[in-house]
Amino acid sequence: MQVPSPSMREAASMYGTAVAVFLVILVAALQSSAPPESPFPYRISLDPEGSLELSWNVSYTQETVYFQLLVQELKAGVLFGMSDRGELENADLVVLWTDGDNAYFGDAWSDQWGQIHLDSQQDYQLLQVQRTPEGLCLLFKRPFGTCDPKDYLIEDGTVHLVYGILEEPFGSLEAINTSGLQTGLQRVQLLKPNISIPALPSDMHSMEIHTPDILIPGQKTTYWCHITELPDGFSRHHIVMYEPIVTKGNEALVHHMEVFQCTAQFESFPQFSGPCDSKMKPDHLNYCRHVLAAWALGAKAFYYPEEAGLAFGGPGSSRYLRLEVHYHNPLKIQGRRDSSGIRLYYTATLRRFDAGIMELGLVYTPVMAIPPQETAFVLTGYCTDKCTQLALPPSGIHIFASQLHTHLTGRKVVTVLARDGREREVVNRDDHYSPHFQEIRMLKKIVSVQPGDVLITSCTYNTGDRKLATVGGFGILEEMCVNYVHYYPQTQLELCKSAVDPGFLQKYFHLVNRFNEEEVCTCPQASVPKQFASVPWNSFSRDVLRALYGFAPISMHCNKSSAVRFQGEWNRQPLPKIISKLEEPTPRCPASRVQSPTSPTVVSIGGSKS
Amino acid sequence: MQVPSPSMREAASMYGTAVAVFLVILVAALQSSAPPESPFPYRISLDPEGSLELSWNVSYTQETVYFQLLVQELKAGVLFGMSDRGELENADLVVLWTDGDNAYFGDAWSDQWGQIHLDSQQDYQLLQVQRTPEGLCLLFKRPFGTCDPKDYLIEDGTVHLVYGILEEPFGSLEAINTSGLQTGLQRVQLLKPNISIPALPSDMHSMEIHTPDILIPGQKTTYWCHITELPDGFSRHHIVMYEPIVTKGNEALVHHMEVFQCTAQFESFPQFSGPCDSKMKPDHLNYCRHVLAAWALGAKAFYYPEEAGLAFGGPGSSRYLRLEVHYHNPLKIQGRRDSSGIRLYYTATLRRFDAGIMELGLVYTPVMAIPPQETAFVLTGYCTDKCTQLALPPSGIHIFASQLHTHLTGRKVVTVLARDGREREVVNRDDHYSPHFQEIRMLKKIVSVQPGDVLITSCTYNTGDRKLATVGGFGILEEMCVNYVHYYPQTQLELCKSAVDPGFLQKYFHLVNRFNEEEVCTCPQASVPKQFASVPWNSFSRDVLRALYGFAPISMHCNKSSAVRFQGEWNRQPLPKIISKLEEPTPRCPASRVQSPTSPTVVSIGGSKS
Repeated sequence: MQVPSPSMREAASMYGTAVAVFLVILVAALQSSAPPESPFPYRISLDPEGSLELSWNVSYTQETVYFQLLVQELKAGVLFGMSDRGELENADLVVLWTDGDNAYFGDAWSDQWGQIHLDSQQDYQLLQVQRTPEGLCLLFKRPFGTCDPKDYLIEDGTVHLVYGILEEPFGSLEAINTSGLQTGLQRVQLLKPNISIPALPSDMHSMEIHTPDILIPGQKTTYWCHITELPDGFSRHHIVMYEPIVTKGNEALVHHMEVFQCTAQFESFPQFSGPCDSKMKPDHLNYCRHVLAAWALGAKAFYYPEEAGLAFGGPGSSRYLRLEVHYHNPLKIQGRRDSSGIRLYYTATLRRFDAGIMELGLVYTPVMAIPPQETAFVLTGYCTDKCTQLALPPSGIHIFASQLHTHLTGRKVVTVLARDGREREVVNRDDHYSPHFQEIRMLKKIVSVQPGDVLITSCTYNTGDRKLATVGGFGILEEMCVNYVHYYPQTQLELCKSAVDPGFLQKYFHLVNRFNEEEVCTCPQASVPKQFASVPWNSFSRDVLRALYGFAPISMHCNKSSAVRFQGEWNRQPLPKIISKLEEPTPRCPASRVQSPTSPTVVSIGGSKS
Repeated sequence: MQVPSPSMREAASMYGTAVAVFLVILVAALQSSAPPESPFPYRISLDPEGSLELSWNVSYTQETVYFQLLVQELKAGVLFGMSDRGELENADLVVLWTDGDNAYFGDAWSDQWGQIHLDSQQDYQLLQVQRTPEGLCLLFKRPFGTCDPKDYLIEDGTVHLVYGILEEPFGSLEAINTSGLQTGLQRVQLLKPNISIPALPSDMHSMEIHTPDILIPGQKTTYWCHITELPDGFSRHHIVMYEPIVTKGNEALVHHMEVFQCTAQFESFPQFSGPCDSKMKPDHLNYCRHVLAAWALGAKAFYYPEEAGLAFGGPGSSRYLRLEVHYHNPLKIQGRRDSSGIRLYYTATLRRFDAGIMELGLVYTPVMAIPPQETAFVLTGYCTDKCTQLALPPSGIHIFASQLHTHLTGRKVVTVLARDGREREVVNRDDHYSPHFQEIRMLKKIVSVQPGDVLITSCTYNTGDRKLATVGGFGILEEMCVNYVHYYPQTQLELCKSAVDPGFLQKYFHLVNRFNEEEVCTCPQASVPKQFASVPWNSFSRDVLRALYGFAPISMHCNKSSAVRFQGEWNRQPLPKIISKLEEPTPRCPASRVQSPTSPTVVSIGGSKS
């Protein structure tokens, strides 16, 4: 890695004239393994300008991802890789760089200061380097797991891809620091499930449910409620697909959108279009809670499985729909107009099963809170055996898709199914969850839930930048822990969530006061958020809150569509007892390890001056 | 691994006649790396009969252990390896076995049911197989860490070696289950420090301090106190070495022994030889607490560094010594006589420094307790900055040896040095600590402690087989957490230990009562052990106890030799604040990995019938 003779300046100028525009690159020692036969089905632009285009494919049998990186205008090199949350420090990288004479390709990593080092084990394997009319095209592969402690483990869920542009030659890899480069990140689900888009019916129609060119309020958080009606005499249909319509320019403001159907118990609903917390909002709108479609930042179109569709229209079903749009406007921009919403695709030819959406996780209540300055605090919501026993059909339900949802401090979300006290399988897990990338994801494997099963949803939060406790609630600065699961056949159960018993939380405030000999407001008049705000956050108050959430009884919301609980006692319920947990996924090392070079691959540069 | 033709029975008989007695084995494909030049300095018998003898050497530059296993009478094969605590399940093994035709050597592991599997990565590397007059001699090596998740990580501290004898051929490796074999374990410090035995003075003498042929009491726990005297006019000497004298046949009963010197403030001490808790014991004996020598089960002779010795005798020093022998007699054997003790080797030619022994860790008090059914509960004792500031000389002290001590549930012990709130270095760590193997160990590197430094000693306990809380105390069924550190130059500080503030523990009992709505005896009349015995052990009471120990102020014992505290306020002291911790030792993968076969090595068998 020592550059032989020419000084850096000479090298740079040599490079400028001879290499920058260069051309045919021949790879010295390419491995024999051929790329998979199919082309690359997934493609994304890494940078806003679209000059770095990544295509990829996944081989589940080889547990390997094949990457094709197209660099439109190569300067002195490029960095590409992955990191926990999209940072360029502590990243797992491939680097194509030049010292002015030769070009190199190497598996590298960046330390906490952004300095690049070569991996002791070369797990990114270069397969081909090709000059195409579009640019330089690098083909390489990487196993999901490598057992190199410096490598990123490629898992299900969100992957934060990172890139950097090298503008000039570097004498050595170690001379590169990511802090001086033009860099960026892009979030993707790298391990896309092997599921093809279901066939769409020939008699498919569409309708748009959107806000009527409204003025987005100049405040941080707005939930906009808009009432609309299905056509008169609209018969029973199945929604088979839907997609977002986001008004151009408002992409950063529209945080999530949901379409709810109103209850059939009222003949009609008043017209309304305004903030959901407005005093003008008719009370009736609280009866519009049956979810028809849900979209959040980062998601694309959503398809139902071929055997199921979401029913709407027809007798016994209300003609009234409520669109809810959550505008997140931290800069309090004024005067922006918006007509965002959702486009539903539906068919009159009903599919075999009605599909449904169910909310799992935590109730939106301040009793569930995260202390400040926590880097990985876990809150857990339960859908108990008692609720599934009561609400699910004897043959159970089948979950085929899931959308995880938290607000800004969410870092991981997982839902696990437990039966007879034992965790059985993961419904959906994202260990690199980002609130900025809330796709609805098809599950790799449909998960069947039987009556009596327990669904446990845990969210991990990072409140490292907060000074006060973060309580549960609707505001963007409050938190949620929700998994919207999409399933069939539809049941009456729409909400299966929990929160700690409020009485036990009051005991907690009392004991914190007792141990700290300080003033904590335990007076019943104070609101729970105010009580949390006055807790002195030391190791004891943190640990005991964690212990409380792992021990105290819970209040269950086991609710039907109409915001009505199923009959039964749902307060002070015992926490589900789990006697055996699923094993943590251990990184599997590739069974047979290729003897890998511990030095970068030299890519010999030929070429002609331009 | 498929056996070709002959049936198992045929194979076994073939093996019996043709193979069992003979023995020239040629290794098919040995790697080129030569064993280190020096012979094997460490040797131990693995089995009680001495038919399996292990010798080994450590290369710290290669981070590799070289093993030589001598199998005196090879039957059909042998298993050798390591496991967390000496169990044959979940063990990391090398297996030499035969299917009747061929013999094989492979790196393997046993699962939780004891079934053997071949490792996907072969990290034990066979170097030589040789028939010698003594038996079959296998030479192989293993890096400390391998990155194979099925492999044991060889670390400092205790290593539990395991073995098994194969009596008959097996059709395949997978057919072997350790549960059917003759097996056993042996504890060793595998990574011995690279320190040679210090030169001993030519004018060395010895004396024996032992019990006078006493009758060991037929009770579980006895601390025997025996007073003896130095010869009249015995001048100042340095102890340079000492070794245990254990009466033959009592090896399992003698748990640990210490020799204390009495205080010089009394002219003379009464004769006494009896249980330390006897009502007949003279009160004066409480003034015999200056440690001269300490031995515990598993230790060998102890040598002082050449520049230091332990002073005794001469003016200002008492002629009276107290020997304390801890007899552990769980079977309550009656009528056994004992004269165990310690043999001191000393010189009149004083060395440059006086050495000392200091006790770090937890005070022997029931306020520090471990809930039942915990597999890894941690208790921590502190030697605070305030105490070291007061008691250590400006130039600090130098720790050269350490003896870790717990009772039966201890599983790990570690002492860390912290300075300015940051953990700096490990004084001694044993992640596979066993109370049955309490050696005094020389440190690989002398650790210097400055005034104002903090020494943090943590013990991890497994109370999985206990029904009630295990409290701190002297009994073998109670627990201790102690690190006896050997250092120079000697100071007055003999004991630097802590325990939780008793007042905060009472708050704990109160809150447990409040949260559980059950009867917990919080009356001040009840003893702390009784209060702990009545705690309902659920997740909350466990977690809050853990939180309490991590938060509540401590009582410090910052004591001089004479059981007298240094002057100052030592109650309700704040816990030392640690803002940065040492990183957990991460298993380093060998930098350049040898391309390793994923199948066992065939060792071709030639030979002659006997």
